[in-house]
Amino acid sequence: MEKALAYAEENFERFVSELEELLRIPSISTKPDHADDVRLAADWLAEHLRSIGVPRVEVMETPGHPVVYGENISDPNRPTVLVYGHYDVQPPDPLELWDSPPFEPIRKNGVLYARGTCDDKGQLFMHAKAAEAYMSAEGGLPLNVKYIFEGEEENGSVNLPAFIESHKALLAADVVFISDTALFGSGVPSITYGLRGLAYVEVTLTGPTHDLHSGVYGGAIENPINVLARMISSLHDDDHRVTIPGFYNDVIPLSDEERTTFASLPFDDQEWIEDVGVSVARTEEGYTVLEGTTARPTLDCNGIWGGYTDPGAKTVLPSKASAKISMRLVPDQTPEDITEKMRKYFEYNTPSTMKLTFTDLHGGYGALVDTHSDAMKAASKAMEGVYGEKPYFVRTGGSIPIVADFKKLLGLDTVLMGFGLDSDAIHSPNEHFGLDRFQQGIQSIIRWMKIYGEG
Amino acid sequence: MEKALAYAEENFERFVSELEELLRIPSISTKPDHADDVRLAADWLAEHLRSIGVPRVEVMETPGHPVVYGENISDPNRPTVLVYGHYDVQPPDPLELWDSPPFEPIRKNGVLYARGTCDDKGQLFMHAKAAEAYMSAEGGLPLNVKYIFEGEEENGSVNLPAFIESHKALLAADVVFISDTALFGSGVPSITYGLRGLAYVEVTLTGPTHDLHSGVYGGAIENPINVLARMISSLHDDDHRVTIPGFYNDVIPLSDEERTTFASLPFDDQEWIEDVGVSVARTEEGYTVLEGTTARPTLDCNGIWGGYTDPGAKTVLPSKASAKISMRLVPDQTPEDITEKMRKYFEYNTPSTMKLTFTDLHGGYGALVDTHSDAMKAASKAMEGVYGEKPYFVRTGGSIPIVADFKKLLGLDTVLMGFGLDSDAIHSPNEHFGLDRFQQGIQSIIRWMKIYGEG
Repeated sequence: MEKALAYAEENFERFVSELEELLRIPSISTKPDHADDVRLAADWLAEHLRSIGVPRVEVMETPGHPVVYGENISDPNRPTVLVYGHYDVQPPDPLELWDSPPFEPIRKNGVLYARGTCDDKGQLFMHAKAAEAYMSAEGGLPLNVKYIFEGEEENGSVNLPAFIESHKALLAADVVFISDTALFGSGVPSITYGLRGLAYVEVTLTGPTHDLHSGVYGGAIENPINVLARMISSLHDDDHRVTIPGFYNDVIPLSDEERTTFASLPFDDQEWIEDVGVSVARTEEGYTVLEGTTARPTLDCNGIWGGYTDPGAKTVLPSKASAKISMRLVPDQTPEDITEKMRKYFEYNTPSTMKLTFTDLHGGYGALVDTHSDAMKAASKAMEGVYGEKPYFVRTGGSIPIVADFKKLLGLDTVLMGFGLDSDAIHSPNEHFGLDRFQQGIQSIIRWMKIYGEG
Repeated sequence: MEKALAYAEENFERFVSELEELLRIPSISTKPDHADDVRLAADWLAEHLRSIGVPRVEVMETPGHPVVYGENISDPNRPTVLVYGHYDVQPPDPLELWDSPPFEPIRKNGVLYARGTCDDKGQLFMHAKAAEAYMSAEGGLPLNVKYIFEGEEENGSVNLPAFIESHKALLAADVVFISDTALFGSGVPSITYGLRGLAYVEVTLTGPTHDLHSGVYGGAIENPINVLARMISSLHDDDHRVTIPGFYNDVIPLSDEERTTFASLPFDDQEWIEDVGVSVARTEEGYTVLEGTTARPTLDCNGIWGGYTDPGAKTVLPSKASAKISMRLVPDQTPEDITEKMRKYFEYNTPSTMKLTFTDLHGGYGALVDTHSDAMKAASKAMEGVYGEKPYFVRTGGSIPIVADFKKLLGLDTVLMGFGLDSDAIHSPNEHFGLDRFQQGIQSIIRWMKIYGEG
């Protein structure tokens, strides 16, 4: 293993240059006019896996963007890890807030800037580079590896569950490994054992059949923007709890042990507030910032639009108003149940002046992983080897719904060892990834392969 | 007067042909590349006034498009009317929805189609033709007339108040007369005595300094869309009254007489509801549709935007949310006072988690004209002479801010006698004006000049 670690250090500069090639491909999965770019990224990645010596690599079709599958079975008696990552990225908008073009990677003070550096091209690439280092320097891997890299994560992994379902034998493994999460803090190693789920809906209220002149009609027409505002406004009470009936029914409460661990984590509310750029935090009554953002369900409006939105004053009384609203869920809330409750809330509260269109855009399950499994213990040791201290087990507020799918469809737990930072601006302008963390990730994965593979 | 009326009938065909000449000039005031056409229309109109015998006619400069001024003082002891109109027109877009080219007038079944037929070339031309008929057939006018025809009404009359301010002596008169409104209905004569004002603002709430990932931050960040929704939602109470403190302070209540008149108007709520395409009307508690849309102040969101608004699900927790909000005002509300109250409302209700940006986009005064003045009584008699029945005095929900400017700067009330119909498609493709109404307008103006001029 020492040779693999040394190889990874010696070739690091080249690794970064290769990653930059992948980052230059604008593989935005949600934009139909970028479909060719998504495929280009898949082909590039497949070719790259072949080039480092993965014996079987295929670009496999789905009804949407393709899956890159790779397989390196060195010894059937060794355990098999299924490495998941995604090579698609978020749209870069708003473009004008980027300091440099989002698809022209640039290094500044040891940090690599581009869309996808952290989420998730940079992190999935650590696995390719760890494997290359191991194979090149040690003559082979200490375990079997399968890769499943998808191109639709930012579009809700819409086709992946069906793909897994129809390729169960191909994907059979002992554990899943995903690097798509963040460290608890800069220099603070951590492994994620809890993820939130997601229910994401879009609602449109239609009042009059067409836009009207506010002078002629204002005063006798219920305005869909005003009504939508009222309905959104009523979704929280004064304690910032969600008011949808039954919303909290299936929430597993935080245990005393968890709350004690949360309190012991190196987390400073004031520092967090300053980092985020707000004046104060606003959590559900009775919960800390850390609990509120990782272990409690929440509701946010992600977008709203209606009427005249260009410069100047147009006196239109709009026909329609729309909003995108998402809820982060915690086990055992399910997206189906929460979406249904949301639908009922909107149906019940839509006044007779309006027509409601309710669309279930996306859903995903949360997850809680057993921290005492062999794979998790190996993960803890591997990170300790790199960082010199035991990592914390933490919960995270984001969603990786595929974790629940791997559990449900393949019966597999997932090791969530990620090297991002909350400040990496994923989904935002100027996304970046520290090259030190890129290196630490590669080293941690090399160590984990050794510890887990050799038992 | 009978000779003037007969002259107007005999020469009607020629009158229409002359109007068509004016309509052929695409005097679109908001389009810089049509500036020459606007001037061409001004020159044509000035020349036309000279040709019918108006002794003093000038094309007068403003920082924008010119004013056509005309003056016919027959007897200093007689009253003087200041006739206002505008010779500029709205852009004709979308062109593809016109059945015939917008600047090639065409007559079909007694209706004249072209941009500006109703708004306002056709209506201002009625005044020129009434004067010509009177002068030619009766040997002179029964009152003094001044004309102020502007070329920037469709661009907000940006230079007119300053023009009036600096030409007070020139424009001195006893009353203003404007034909730029609509009849209450087809064949239903009416005179407008009330106009609403306008206060139009834009608000932006900024929470976090940049967009955040709703998974990572959702649960401890106050969301600007949710907060803006709450603030907009609170702008109305359950009775659909506006909650801004002091909003109704200066509203002149509807008198019993007015409410009786409103109730007697040929207006069918159900027909209106079907025309508009809504299921039910929603007015301020205690008021009818007609009262709500013309005689009560109202508040509407004209536009709202924030966060992610493209297709699909982006889990962004937005930095900003914005809305355009306008209020239709009734006398004696002023745009300055209401905008200030609105500003205070938003300042007071912006939580400490948000930064407020408040912009005053536009404002205009409403107007109420005394229906018992000599000029208004003459208007009523004049229309009765043409239509065989007394016209209704009505209020309208839209704004003609210049009416308040005439009052403020010259101390003059305005007679609003217009012959359009709401269905004339002003500002829309296939604008048109019924030639019967063009004739009725000329006849009504001839009668009004006689009745008002001779006292």
